[in-house]
Amino acid sequence: MPKVIFDTDPGVDDAMALLFLHRHPEIDLVGITTVFGNAAVETTTRNALFLKSAFKIDAPVVRGAGVTFDRDRPARPWPTIVHGENGLGDIDIPNDADLPIGEEDEAAQFIIDTIRQNPGEISIVAVGRMTNLANALAKAPDIAGLVRDVVIMGGSFYVPGNVTPAAEANIAGDPEAADRVMTAPWKVAVIGLDVTTKTVMTRATLKELADKGGPEVSLLNELSQSYIDFYDHLIADAMLVHDTCACVYLVRPDLFDTVTGQIRVSCDGLTDGQTVLKPSHRRFPPGAWDHFPAQTVAVDVAADRVMALVHDTLVRR
Amino acid sequence: MPKVIFDTDPGVDDAMALLFLHRHPEIDLVGITTVFGNAAVETTTRNALFLKSAFKIDAPVVRGAGVTFDRDRPARPWPTIVHGENGLGDIDIPNDADLPIGEEDEAAQFIIDTIRQNPGEISIVAVGRMTNLANALAKAPDIAGLVRDVVIMGGSFYVPGNVTPAAEANIAGDPEAADRVMTAPWKVAVIGLDVTTKTVMTRATLKELADKGGPEVSLLNELSQSYIDFYDHLIADAMLVHDTCACVYLVRPDLFDTVTGQIRVSCDGLTDGQTVLKPSHRRFPPGAWDHFPAQTVAVDVAADRVMALVHDTLVRR
Repeated sequence: MPKVIFDTDPGVDDAMALLFLHRHPEIDLVGITTVFGNAAVETTTRNALFLKSAFKIDAPVVRGAGVTFDRDRPARPWPTIVHGENGLGDIDIPNDADLPIGEEDEAAQFIIDTIRQNPGEISIVAVGRMTNLANALAKAPDIAGLVRDVVIMGGSFYVPGNVTPAAEANIAGDPEAADRVMTAPWKVAVIGLDVTTKTVMTRATLKELADKGGPEVSLLNELSQSYIDFYDHLIADAMLVHDTCACVYLVRPDLFDTVTGQIRVSCDGLTDGQTVLKPSHRRFPPGAWDHFPAQTVAVDVAADRVMALVHDTLVRR
Repeated sequence: MPKVIFDTDPGVDDAMALLFLHRHPEIDLVGITTVFGNAAVETTTRNALFLKSAFKIDAPVVRGAGVTFDRDRPARPWPTIVHGENGLGDIDIPNDADLPIGEEDEAAQFIIDTIRQNPGEISIVAVGRMTNLANALAKAPDIAGLVRDVVIMGGSFYVPGNVTPAAEANIAGDPEAADRVMTAPWKVAVIGLDVTTKTVMTRATLKELADKGGPEVSLLNELSQSYIDFYDHLIADAMLVHDTCACVYLVRPDLFDTVTGQIRVSCDGLTDGQTVLKPSHRRFPPGAWDHFPAQTVAVDVAADRVMALVHDTLVRR
């Protein structure tokens, strides 16, 4: 049973992923590390603490990075149109002051310590920017050899991005961090828009799950409503299930079609934040991909079976 | 019936495309402009003249660019592993000295003059680097409003590139030129690796066509043998029909599935030479694609029907 650190920026779909990890019987959630992305890190940390309490989760919340790995990179605006001003669809949440969000960026050290204390046992599921992971690698490269694996929600390979035609939000939010994470000598699986745009939760289904899943799923239903409204330009009355899709990979990798190869991240210009795969079975002249470890990229998914597992897991009590 | 300028760097698959244009009854080939790419422009011009003679084509061959639009861009090595040292699979061809290849880059002016003399009637089919087209646009922006359309073989959108994981050879060979061509206010259709990797000519079929198509197709068969050998790492005993595929689009666009949107070309970094489409139906924050004309990108193809048309056309006498 994997011990999981969930690195997250809640975030509407992060909330669903967190409940999935908590309720799945074959996952041992040992820590929640926060990062900026869907909102400022103060907000995502407050949200993580709120969700931990609402979902009755024991694992600690540890506050992480609030700025990019390369501190000179210009900041991007928060995606309030997607996740709301408060990062959780603008539902009512307890005032910041009520929750001890901490003052320091302690996530990288928590990741390092937890991996070292549990060699070969920790899976990191990272569904925000890759900043905490890159910071941890920079401080302690040895963790790459001690971690079980890293599952990332991010990137787009053979479909358009979502913040630019080339780039997906989590990677575009900190491309230098993502490039460091993708090229490190640990086992990375990348669950990007190629598959997460196929895993869809309709408004009607989420309502049904809320009726069966208790107050926790009712909360998910409530905080997802404006997110579903946002997605109306892409899909009617439904949301894309980005982050939970990556969590499903952790327990059911057989539901995904994957390609292996080296991954680099564009860190400038037109394609800033784009993930580019060199498939292992393809031949190219020498280039920037050479000599890095091959990683795993999801390119297709049995979406109906993924969503059936999501449904079943969210309503487990 | 479109009057066609064929902008080309023969090149093995260029040779097949040239014969297709010559033999298709609904195409009026009015000029062949040469460009560097598969070999130096001296070589591709010599090859074009050789093929013009061998195929008994009346249209003139006009020598074009031998260096990139941005003259400071470092040169790439010639792809001799693909097209041979002589650009035509290393078959015997008459000595350079026998053919008047010209000394000047006159293709851009030829393109300008021909378009101005035939307003609304000229289609350019460009299957090499975009340098001649960019040079023509720079000298005479008015041609954008006078040309019928531009069909390009180049780029890769939702599949890997072929010279890097991100970039296709014709675009990577002169990204600044390609970006200028894609963003100009003329009608461009881009036939890239998304479709040309699906149009396949087997060695056996080419041999059969040679038996039916006369000495011209026998020559194609001969000069394609080492190219077919090269493709062995991707596909057994067959070649990809890149350039002819773009020619088919000219007469049978209905055989292609297309997406419209703005196209930009990455001109530096990891993704140098990559074509990036902003699909018209997708919503993004303001960015580098805005305010340019929407072009047409082929994303899928009825490959069997395209190849049937290629077979039928090549053997017309």
